Amino acid sequence: MREPIFLPLDQPELETDLAGGVVRRTVHPSGLRVLTERMPSARSASIGFWVGVGSRDEQAERDDAPGSLGSTHFLEHLLFKGTPTRDAYSIATSFDRIGAEHNALTAKEYTCYYAKVRDADLDGAVTVLADMVTNSVLDGDEFEMERGVILEELAMAADDLADVANERFFEAVMGDHPLGRPIGGHPETIRAARRDDVDLHYRDRYDPTTLVITAAGAVDHDRLVERVLEALNLSPQERWHTDRDGTPVRRVQGEGRIDSTSVDASADQTPSASSVPGLSTGAAGTGNAEPSVHITARPSEQVNLLIGTEGLRSNDPRRFAFGVMNSVLGGGMSSRLFQEIREKRGLAYTAYSFGASYSDAGLFGMYAGCAPEKAAEVVELSRLELQRMAETGITDEERERALGQIAGSSALALEDSDTRMGRLARAELGSGELYDLDASLERFAAVTGDEIRSIAAELAARPLTIVAVGDTSRAEL
Amino acid sequence: MREPIFLPLDQPELETDLAGGVVRRTVHPSGLRVLTERMPSARSASIGFWVGVGSRDEQAERDDAPGSLGSTHFLEHLLFKGTPTRDAYSIATSFDRIGAEHNALTAKEYTCYYAKVRDADLDGAVTVLADMVTNSVLDGDEFEMERGVILEELAMAADDLADVANERFFEAVMGDHPLGRPIGGHPETIRAARRDDVDLHYRDRYDPTTLVITAAGAVDHDRLVERVLEALNLSPQERWHTDRDGTPVRRVQGEGRIDSTSVDASADQTPSASSVPGLSTGAAGTGNAEPSVHITARPSEQVNLLIGTEGLRSNDPRRFAFGVMNSVLGGGMSSRLFQEIREKRGLAYTAYSFGASYSDAGLFGMYAGCAPEKAAEVVELSRLELQRMAETGITDEERERALGQIAGSSALALEDSDTRMGRLARAELGSGELYDLDASLERFAAVTGDEIRSIAAELAARPLTIVAVGDTSRAEL
Repeated sequence: MREPIFLPLDQPELETDLAGGVVRRTVHPSGLRVLTERMPSARSASIGFWVGVGSRDEQAERDDAPGSLGSTHFLEHLLFKGTPTRDAYSIATSFDRIGAEHNALTAKEYTCYYAKVRDADLDGAVTVLADMVTNSVLDGDEFEMERGVILEELAMAADDLADVANERFFEAVMGDHPLGRPIGGHPETIRAARRDDVDLHYRDRYDPTTLVITAAGAVDHDRLVERVLEALNLSPQERWHTDRDGTPVRRVQGEGRIDSTSVDASADQTPSASSVPGLSTGAAGTGNAEPSVHITARPSEQVNLLIGTEGLRSNDPRRFAFGVMNSVLGGGMSSRLFQEIREKRGLAYTAYSFGASYSDAGLFGMYAGCAPEKAAEVVELSRLELQRMAETGITDEERERALGQIAGSSALALEDSDTRMGRLARAELGSGELYDLDASLERFAAVTGDEIRSIAAELAARPLTIVAVGDTSRAEL
Repeated sequence: MREPIFLPLDQPELETDLAGGVVRRTVHPSGLRVLTERMPSARSASIGFWVGVGSRDEQAERDDAPGSLGSTHFLEHLLFKGTPTRDAYSIATSFDRIGAEHNALTAKEYTCYYAKVRDADLDGAVTVLADMVTNSVLDGDEFEMERGVILEELAMAADDLADVANERFFEAVMGDHPLGRPIGGHPETIRAARRDDVDLHYRDRYDPTTLVITAAGAVDHDRLVERVLEALNLSPQERWHTDRDGTPVRRVQGEGRIDSTSVDASADQTPSASSVPGLSTGAAGTGNAEPSVHITARPSEQVNLLIGTEGLRSNDPRRFAFGVMNSVLGGGMSSRLFQEIREKRGLAYTAYSFGASYSDAGLFGMYAGCAPEKAAEVVELSRLELQRMAETGITDEERERALGQIAGSSALALEDSDTRMGRLARAELGSGELYDLDASLERFAAVTGDEIRSIAAELAARPLTIVAVGDTSRAEL
């Protein structure tokens, strides 16, 4: 079996063949990392500036302090607002005039600023992104203006009931764990946010040791490294402002973090709900206990349902078994959930299952939107399908279909340079293990029926959380 | 200047060089058309079965008949439900087991069934798509089940206030024109739909003369044509069931269609609201008249606003001027609407403008979602920006940026085989004129400042429609 490529931090230069491309990485003495994957026939490139800080790193509200929920996302917005040499309009124009696909995103464990551009435009994009990310002035007036924009962004999300359900689901499953918090914060925390606190967050967290620059497509590694160092005003030996020792940050299981409790590093232990510490789980291993039901009443035509429980960490070796199981359970039109809920009964337009994984916790969920009167039936059908999976696993035919689906969809996804650009960054910021397509397909193919039943049984045995958002007055939940 | 490639219908075999690929077309004696664009380095292909029938072709409700609104979309769903040799599960599995990106969409003037697959999977996808599209059994039980699914799809759309605003905007601007109707129908028409009517729609409308098969990426034209004919059980000379004379259907301005009035073919005439017949316009050329305001009250955090008027037909020669104007007005972060509404005032998270064009009519709109109390201000800002554009046009710098944006974003979009696959089909089903990237960029570059001012002046002079959906009790509209 092909091993994943491990990206050791003490190796400043690394080059390795991946199926479909060559991956190279340079670690600068400051800790800054640049990774590229050249795609031979590409005429465009995707580039991302990734910072290893996300909403989970924010300070939660406490009795003696207002907390800073939403400050990472607020900061992401502010980085578009200007540097000493570029105002907001100039930054916007830089991307628009080359027709770049560009944006930024704040996640729970990282923040990313990215652009997809024609090959000839890559150097220019690097210059602007580097300036934005490292030299933002966080102007006070712009701060106030952006507060209004972010409040509108939260208002927009609050009007999207599927979005609301998703936030509630994270809160309900994760409890007080920092991963349970909303990425954007709450309107109250945004209204209370102060420029100096966000500035502190910026100075404290944006640092060469947390910055990872990845690019894929029509990119030349040496040239990109040169441009990056130039744009960041770094000589090959010089260090950008940092008080740290230049050791890059990786988010590894077991490392203490703000607000997180100590973490059990053994992911192979006997499954139980308590295997993910820091979560408020209630009774462990009690799949037959009453599920906890979280209802948000809103006028609506449909009720948005999420049914699930704690899932797997990013590096859980059982993630390959989970992937095959998830494909069969809820990964397409032929999946069991889609067939049982939509095709056989016409109860919903969409029904699927998913996993979300982070360094020290994860969650598993099943989603459907349906008429309020049918909500109880859809919840019951979903539970039964998970239970059936736990008891009887999958058939050989389903297994073959799942492996084909994973192989085909992965191959199609990897044709886009942005997928490869993101894969590099998540590996580098995460465990440092990079699975190329063939290596990961071999892992999926090696999954046994017992492993699939076992992971389903573990999920089915965990306390179930049900989130319903919509006109729940007619739903018997 | 490079001319567009015209695809004459009396020429059964056609091959032409496009920038970036070779386009070939075969017209079968039955009227069936197959078009391909080979992309040299592609490892995957996108294939679409396009039928030249859309929601505009449905029978509207009348005193003596219930109408068939939503039947085209209902039919699209039913084609996934089975043929004499493939049941619904088998169809779903065919796509899932190769990890295809596949779906179908019903639009106002066409219906499309498509898949993106790895090169080795293309033949298989053709076989299944051909069977689905031409041999559906429209089973009565499946029909009833799918009625529930479609009602849930409509319920989901009804909960999405931006979606609701979009439907209202089409209705309000287009009036009784068939393009003003909702693609999915209404819950009442779906509840009233009868299997035999949808079957009639299928027999009547799905025909070799309305079917266009397009593919792009890793595709060999001759092989594809062979597969298609084999899958459709057609010899190179034989005709698939049709009573027509085998003349392919193109949706051209001036051709009579169900419910549409006669159309003035001169798109170059002096701009006025009455230049798009079939629309209920009110007073023409009265930009200073009171706009017509359409309010849909819903509990919400944001009000979804659409402000606009009639726009351009697909083939309007002024569409290149409109494209440049639209880029400057509302086509990116540096656009005027984004700057004025979001960046300078923090009133909205999103603000943009757009055009939607059809064979004999079109519309132009400006969108923003904002706090109810700010709705009147956002509407006024949008009107003012359109007015300013009409009076003073754009600067040289804006023009350069717009051309760069159009060139860059088009080049990036055309890297995806699905974009090219769709471009072929829209050209073939529309006017038969195919602009490759260079030819269309030359058109954009040739646009003069006067033309931009002129198209903006025309839009600004038309009666304005304002649609607001959300908690409008606090909005002074």
